Amino acid sequence: MRVYYNHTDAGGVVYHSCYLTFCEQARSEVFFKNNIFFNKDEGYVVKELKAKYLKPAKLGDILTIKSKLLEIKNASLKLHQEIFKDNEKIFEMDVVLVYTKNGKITKIPKEHKKVIDEFR
Amino acid sequence: MRVYYNHTDAGGVVYHSCYLTFCEQARSEVFFKNNIFFNKDEGYVVKELKAKYLKPAKLGDILTIKSKLLEIKNASLKLHQEIFKDNEKIFEMDVVLVYTKNGKITKIPKEHKKVIDEFR
Amino acid sequence: MRVYYNHTDAGGVVYHSCYLTFCEQARSEVFFKNNIFFNKDEGYVVKELKAKYLKPAKLGDILTIKSKLLEIKNASLKLHQEIFKDNEKIFEMDVVLVYTKNGKITKIPKEHKKVIDEFR
Amino acid sequence: MRVYYNHTDAGGVVYHSCYLTFCEQARSEVFFKNNIFFNKDEGYVVKELKAKYLKPAKLGDILTIKSKLLEIKNASLKLHQEIFKDNEKIFEMDVVLVYTKNGKITKIPKEHKKVIDEFR
Repeated sequence: MRVYYNHTDAGGVVYHSCYLTFCEQARSEVFFKNNIFFNKDEGYVVKELKAKYLKPAKLGDILTIKSKLLEIKNASLKLHQEIFKDNEKIFEMDVVLVYTKNGKITKIPKEHKKVIDEFR
Repeated sequence: MRVYYNHTDAGGVVYHSCYLTFCEQARSEVFFKNNIFFNKDEGYVVKELKAKYLKPAKLGDILTIKSKLLEIKNASLKLHQEIFKDNEKIFEMDVVLVYTKNGKITKIPKEHKKVIDEFR
Repeated sequence: MRVYYNHTDAGGVVYHSCYLTFCEQARSEVFFKNNIFFNKDEGYVVKELKAKYLKPAKLGDILTIKSKLLEIKNASLKLHQEIFKDNEKIFEMDVVLVYTKNGKITKIPKEHKKVIDEFR
Repeated sequence: MRVYYNHTDAGGVVYHSCYLTFCEQARSEVFFKNNIFFNKDEGYVVKELKAKYLKPAKLGDILTIKSKLLEIKNASLKLHQEIFKDNEKIFEMDVVLVYTKNGKITKIPKEHKKVIDEFR
């Protein structure tokens, strides 16, 4: 994942909420490459997160995101996600996601479970 | 409209696509304050635009957006929008918007016409 | 603070990292309205955060952000920030910010202390 | 280039200013992969653009950006950029960029010329 101008701010580094976006893109990519495309009325919603910013990232940096499944329940999952720059960890967070359909918390579909297993 | 960190980039000025966002917010605000809230399946879609960037804007700047209706047709309208910083014009664009409903070009509703008249 | 199209995503609600942006704008606004504009080489950097997403926000919603100082140290501060929609809390987070100058952790300037007191 | 949640809006399609961001990322990528990383005080600034939105893009779509140099002058260049989705053109724009250093229009450096030639 490359850092572009739109990710940076006037401080010259990546804007803090972009790290959450990078992590979300990494999660979505696992679904997309398995041909699971969410429709308008379903998806995984962030419920809780706990993040640590360890080092800044800069324009042009190449970042790698690692995601690890910590826990899976009927309708939710908890991931540990880390962002690395040249093998150095610059960010980490624990995030709780809830699967919702038509605005309601819903059991995670079976076909998603296989995909989520990729996070182990 | 205030310029915040997320609008700026590593160059220290407002990222160029944010000007389009500011103009869109100014357009939407006119509808929202008239209690017109678009649902998921309708809205005004940008069809064409022609923009000139005259001066940069910086973190903390207060910007003012002026919108003027140039033309209105059955399903589309053309606006001239300008962004000012301390009475100096820093950006201008002509934008053509098309009203769509369920993905189809649709006649602009009567109740919108009154709102659009505010742009004159 | 109004929710505009750029804050929403295909799920029809506000994208999760925008809540962090809203909170940052609320923090910055307190400094800006006190005529403290950070230059390129200084500012408050997010070190840690812990967030809870309670309810979704939608296009056109008006949100209010409340910020409360939990702790202040030599070079850092901890805030509790809450987002409300019609008097209902929809988001809350604890965030630790570190003041940095030229990339180094630096003592918070005296003139900032008065401003930070507004968060009490 | 993949379309993620943060690029979409409540209308279910890509937010219009993201197309400009995609085009900027495509331009920057050509410089970055040639090991040209701009510092804080230099870069290419958008001066003018003229865009046509032909078709919407949706969550999960893979987009391809093609850039063609139309004109190069001492301190500026003009590109024609197109976005394709499955071989169908969905967006095109002409964009004029000016090279600036310390806030001043500056002659394009020689080492950039070779990189810019990749846009031909």
